[in-house]
Amino acid sequence: MARQERAIRTRDAILVAAAEVFDEVGYEAAAISDVLRRAGVTKGALYFHFASKKELAQAVLANQVLAIPEVPERELALQQGLDESFIVAYMLSKGDPLVRGSVRLTVDQGSPKDGLDRRVPMSGWTERNIDFLTRARDNGELLPHVDVVATAQLFVGAFTGVQMLSKIMTNHADLTDRVTDLQRQLMASIAVPAVLVRLDMSPERPARVYEEAVEARRKKEAEAVTAGASS
Amino acid sequence: MARQERAIRTRDAILVAAAEVFDEVGYEAAAISDVLRRAGVTKGALYFHFASKKELAQAVLANQVLAIPEVPERELALQQGLDESFIVAYMLSKGDPLVRGSVRLTVDQGSPKDGLDRRVPMSGWTERNIDFLTRARDNGELLPHVDVVATAQLFVGAFTGVQMLSKIMTNHADLTDRVTDLQRQLMASIAVPAVLVRLDMSPERPARVYEEAVEARRKKEAEAVTAGASS
Repeated sequence: MARQERAIRTRDAILVAAAEVFDEVGYEAAAISDVLRRAGVTKGALYFHFASKKELAQAVLANQVLAIPEVPERELALQQGLDESFIVAYMLSKGDPLVRGSVRLTVDQGSPKDGLDRRVPMSGWTERNIDFLTRARDNGELLPHVDVVATAQLFVGAFTGVQMLSKIMTNHADLTDRVTDLQRQLMASIAVPAVLVRLDMSPERPARVYEEAVEARRKKEAEAVTAGASS
Repeated sequence: MARQERAIRTRDAILVAAAEVFDEVGYEAAAISDVLRRAGVTKGALYFHFASKKELAQAVLANQVLAIPEVPERELALQQGLDESFIVAYMLSKGDPLVRGSVRLTVDQGSPKDGLDRRVPMSGWTERNIDFLTRARDNGELLPHVDVVATAQLFVGAFTGVQMLSKIMTNHADLTDRVTDLQRQLMASIAVPAVLVRLDMSPERPARVYEEAVEARRKKEAEAVTAGASS
């Protein structure tokens, strides 16, 4: 394994271990020693990648958006936005450590002294939703009154709370159902009728879309490796 | 002052002080000694009302719904539900300690060991919304497809997340705007048109409704005191 590749794997292993610890006990109570044990790396290796617990937490937060496999391109921009939200819901309900850990870091208020910037993932999601909605507007998918920025903020806020309520009440067991409910309501108030009837928001879709996105990522990575080997 | 009344005031002062401390540092880091100092009561007085920090936190959680002044009866059940959500948003944006402290206790995930039951306020809000929506359905205010329970859960989740996003991004400065945005979207997908056009969701309404509700509560309390004195 090339040195660079090994470094990336170590870094990823540390991030996943840290996310698990943050998910279980929160930022304040998290101990670097637990992260080391779980990741099976040395202190030196961890500090080579992350100078402090805060830097580690900030990396987990930054990774929240990146940890989601990309949705293959859809004809309707609204379907693409829907599918991305279904993937996040599905990963949360399956207990994906990176997503769960970073979500907990985002929603726990923490102490003002901890200096964590919780706006990073929120801004990231809001921007992605603005992109989807702008494409939807350009394609003529949106009703004329829709305010793209306000709708993006509304969507990110509503998703955050729906996942939180589902976590508190059912430990995320009903999350994909709650998110499809939310999307049906939102879509009904922003999509033109001809688009609305073509959107797939069925309860089976989240699992299916997740598998499809993971498969697409796997293929892409395999191609990258082949391209690297032949260069 | 009668002994009973004094006890109620002491209990209220302790609850407000505890909510402030929970809002500032979270459950884990909160110290009983800070609550005592802030409330200006003795340890004995506190333990007379609350046996432990956990019991105190659970009381703050239980008080989340009760701390909201009652909305005067409206002709439209949907307007009454809207007005209640506006009052909560307004109180959060003004920094009301009881509401802010209990909201933080609810949304911070804490540790499974802390044993706090965060479902209490969530169930309370969901039930209130089921009540409003059931009345709205009986009055013919809702579109025929509306599922009352799913809509109530959706609304509680969406409100929770919208307030959280507003807290993270603007420390609640834009909360009443975000909540009126949310309500406009939701109402458009559940209310019949004849009701929709009569709902007041203007940006000035939250402050106005809050003043009205506080005034109504003041009157009611004054009447109770008069009735007590003459009995």
